[in-house]
Amino acid sequence: MSDIPRPFTAIGVVHSPFKRPEDIPVEMNADPHGFDAVAGEIEIFPEFESGLKDIDGFSHLIVVFAFHSAGEPRLLVRPPFETGVRGVFATRSPHRPNPVGLTVVKLLGRTGAILRVSGLDMIEGTPVLDLKPYTVKDQKPDIKTGWIK
Amino acid sequence: MSDIPRPFTAIGVVHSPFKRPEDIPVEMNADPHGFDAVAGEIEIFPEFESGLKDIDGFSHLIVVFAFHSAGEPRLLVRPPFETGVRGVFATRSPHRPNPVGLTVVKLLGRTGAILRVSGLDMIEGTPVLDLKPYTVKDQKPDIKTGWIK
Repeated sequence: MSDIPRPFTAIGVVHSPFKRPEDIPVEMNADPHGFDAVAGEIEIFPEFESGLKDIDGFSHLIVVFAFHSAGEPRLLVRPPFETGVRGVFATRSPHRPNPVGLTVVKLLGRTGAILRVSGLDMIEGTPVLDLKPYTVKDQKPDIKTGWIK
Repeated sequence: MSDIPRPFTAIGVVHSPFKRPEDIPVEMNADPHGFDAVAGEIEIFPEFESGLKDIDGFSHLIVVFAFHSAGEPRLLVRPPFETGVRGVFATRSPHRPNPVGLTVVKLLGRTGAILRVSGLDMIEGTPVLDLKPYTVKDQKPDIKTGWIK
């Protein structure tokens, strides 16, 4: 697609206690705080390390990553514990036209290009595409969340 | 990069009152609520419309988009009104290794594949890569935001 200036490439990789998708208990997804205590690391590749300057001052980071083992996209998906299908854009399913995922993690500390974080729901080896600071603009206190209980 | 399963492609396009980057008053970026009243549309292309099923129930959506006119990436950037440089991953600058942007918008209504939204800070013609529902997991009430006042 000519509108996208260049191909996306990994800037780092997630190190997670979940080694495979099936290591994530499906119940954890149903609990909004199910992953809060899951800690791990985000390793940024050396050529991008200088872009981490000043990141230490933020308590939370938005991790944009690739669903690298998601398989083919589907526009209708059946979420865990649901009997009906939902539009993929109304879910956080990995089976998206563009296999891009997003998780807000808590930054626990940094050693060089290694960030210690909690709130991980990605598996080991997940390619990281971008890190962004979570700011006041991302806080939406009053929300409606449709089909999600 | 072999870790990314397929090239990313636009699923839709932003229709914004800002026609060019220079149409966005730089002061708006300094105000966390500067864009709250900026309304526009997200047009999802027909082949992806069925993925919008059930999206109407959500008050806020995460828009993942491409910075299509950002130019070359830089690892150190100088934010507006700042005298020093910051690491790009500690900013929301468009000059990122992967030119991917993220804005949380308010969903005002939907007509077929057209979503009316507010909170837009993108320019006209911005390619949309993904839409995700904003959920309780994305709410982080107590945050530190480093160098950002």
